[in-house]
Amino acid sequence: MIPKGFLFSAVEAAIKKPGRKDLALIYSQVEADMAGAFTTNRVKAAPVRLDMRKIKSGKGQAIIVNSGNANACTGRVGMQDATEMAKRAAEGLGIKTSLLYTASTGVIGNPMPMDRIGPKIQELIENLGKWSLEDVAASIMTTDTFPKIFRKKVKIGNKTGMITGICKGAGMICPHMATMLCFIMTDIAVHQKTLERTLHNAVNKTFNRLTIDGDMSTNDTVLIMANGMLGNPPITEKSLSYLSFNYALEEVAYGLAALIAKDGEGATKFIEIEVNGARSEADAEKAAFAVANSNLVKTAIYGNDANWGRIMAALGYSGADIREEKVDIYFGKVKVAGKGLASGRDKAAGEVLRKKHIKIIIDLNMGKGSAKVLTCDMTEEYIRVNADYRT
Amino acid sequence: MIPKGFLFSAVEAAIKKPGRKDLALIYSQVEADMAGAFTTNRVKAAPVRLDMRKIKSGKGQAIIVNSGNANACTGRVGMQDATEMAKRAAEGLGIKTSLLYTASTGVIGNPMPMDRIGPKIQELIENLGKWSLEDVAASIMTTDTFPKIFRKKVKIGNKTGMITGICKGAGMICPHMATMLCFIMTDIAVHQKTLERTLHNAVNKTFNRLTIDGDMSTNDTVLIMANGMLGNPPITEKSLSYLSFNYALEEVAYGLAALIAKDGEGATKFIEIEVNGARSEADAEKAAFAVANSNLVKTAIYGNDANWGRIMAALGYSGADIREEKVDIYFGKVKVAGKGLASGRDKAAGEVLRKKHIKIIIDLNMGKGSAKVLTCDMTEEYIRVNADYRT
Repeated sequence: MIPKGFLFSAVEAAIKKPGRKDLALIYSQVEADMAGAFTTNRVKAAPVRLDMRKIKSGKGQAIIVNSGNANACTGRVGMQDATEMAKRAAEGLGIKTSLLYTASTGVIGNPMPMDRIGPKIQELIENLGKWSLEDVAASIMTTDTFPKIFRKKVKIGNKTGMITGICKGAGMICPHMATMLCFIMTDIAVHQKTLERTLHNAVNKTFNRLTIDGDMSTNDTVLIMANGMLGNPPITEKSLSYLSFNYALEEVAYGLAALIAKDGEGATKFIEIEVNGARSEADAEKAAFAVANSNLVKTAIYGNDANWGRIMAALGYSGADIREEKVDIYFGKVKVAGKGLASGRDKAAGEVLRKKHIKIIIDLNMGKGSAKVLTCDMTEEYIRVNADYRT
Repeated sequence: MIPKGFLFSAVEAAIKKPGRKDLALIYSQVEADMAGAFTTNRVKAAPVRLDMRKIKSGKGQAIIVNSGNANACTGRVGMQDATEMAKRAAEGLGIKTSLLYTASTGVIGNPMPMDRIGPKIQELIENLGKWSLEDVAASIMTTDTFPKIFRKKVKIGNKTGMITGICKGAGMICPHMATMLCFIMTDIAVHQKTLERTLHNAVNKTFNRLTIDGDMSTNDTVLIMANGMLGNPPITEKSLSYLSFNYALEEVAYGLAALIAKDGEGATKFIEIEVNGARSEADAEKAAFAVANSNLVKTAIYGNDANWGRIMAALGYSGADIREEKVDIYFGKVKVAGKGLASGRDKAAGEVLRKKHIKIIIDLNMGKGSAKVLTCDMTEEYIRVNADYRT
């Protein structure tokens, strides 16, 4: 289920606590077309700054990634370290450093333990192919509780291509470009500009509509590698198979974003918040994000309390154009509020909340804009995870 | 310690659970000059909408307030109920309904139990003067753990006036005008326009720089009554005593805002976040609010973890103009980051965090703008309080 021509490796470099892999390599046997999306936080980690320069070429062949240290707020030394990691890995692989991307996730503000990482890079390269994508997905985890992989087959003419992505999430999740680390690989040949536009499209509708805690990371990175080993004529927007590719990529991105929401720090429930009937898509997005980021809404859902008043309050301060007396709110299929007023069905709605997967549908009845945001509930465990993160 | 000419009353109207007062009256023996500040949430509770009309006259004589039900998202019936409460209380007191203000706090979306409130209004009036301001402060509590009163004497010429305020807070606290319920009384005569401007000034620097959970309420109301019973010539901006009055009012508002932060839902620590060196005051405010609203910063402080990387990340997405390599961060007097880099003093800073009152000082080194925002830490108890609020 792996796209053709991709090899993987992972090692323990003692960046995280003992017994967990924390350094990994993704390698394509041939040079690939690449595109990326990065955090819009003004404070950007060193590897993000480095990748943003490299991605301009649209080309790449490998990604080296570590967890346990974000290499963010590390100044000039951090840039040197990220550069050094790329350089050593590229030399070992015998490829140009410009084709080697870097990514980091973990604690902010500590220098990278290069004394431990450096010697492990050769081992990483020697073991290429001995490890699986699952191992890479596991080695990029921080507070994640399970590795995240999502894949989708795509018919391209008479051939079958594969799009496979991995990601990590859990906390400090509130994109505004991409969120977390995500690497997507495909053997389908795609024209680089098409790859770029399709990725940005997908990211905007998926990772950029995901929030765990409203905190935007310094390290958010989405990279896609299309190595063309399927042998199809490169896809452009005019290709017959473009729509299938575009749809499949969005599905992979959505699947990965949903996995992140399901594994939000301390989460017990996966929540989809759909806003319809907004004056514009932008308004729908504002409204959905305000609800998804409301601690009060998230704690009420955790407590199985269909407290739609908190949703109304969040809509009211969202900045979206709303009129209280027009708003309908559904928990699953149960209408808890109609035209801004209680339906008296809070108890039935409370039952909906006992499930693990919850849909909240809000109709503003103001226009045709709609947007969906993914999130999770908020629990005591979120507090514990984040009060103790560095200890 | 009560300004001259104010009388109080409180009763149990069975809006909240038995054994707690939930309906109260504040009455001035003479008509007072009044000013108010209200939530900017688009979803406004009925009493807020009513008061916003009445305050245009700049006059008032009494406030009837209940806890346990916010009378928000209650439509036309809610407006009728709020109007009815004011009307009945005004009739009982023998004053014009236009001089009677209403305020409510509690659960959103339920109709007011007028069958229980109505009959209690006469009792409330009969008992005027038998109850203290402390009783009123206690009867407006929801998830608050203590009543909140703050007072300040002011020399006006050769007389001594008094400014006394009460408020309630605890959750759904993120102003953008006022936050929560707050009633301030003074016997000092103040010209109405001056009262209005001075109040808005004070609110902008205090209640509007306070956040517990980033959720803006539908009911936020600040009302001030100046009944002039001190007998001084009414203060205007040109009066000799204007500065003392202005300063004292700001102190009372700050004192009350600090009490709200100290009693934030589940809070164990009171946090002042001061941003200096911003390009503008607006930038400083954005930066301070981003840090104060970050769940990750608040949970780290709860865990005594001087995780300044999370502060950097919040500054980075705040929208303020910042440059990573210029930022200094202090926890109390301990510099944890200088020019955007670790100082290696996280352990000493962790000690600072063990206190109950924490100052975080951030210097952006970009200009002269500064702002201070009040908040609290975030704990498992916040989750518990809000998962169970309506049960």
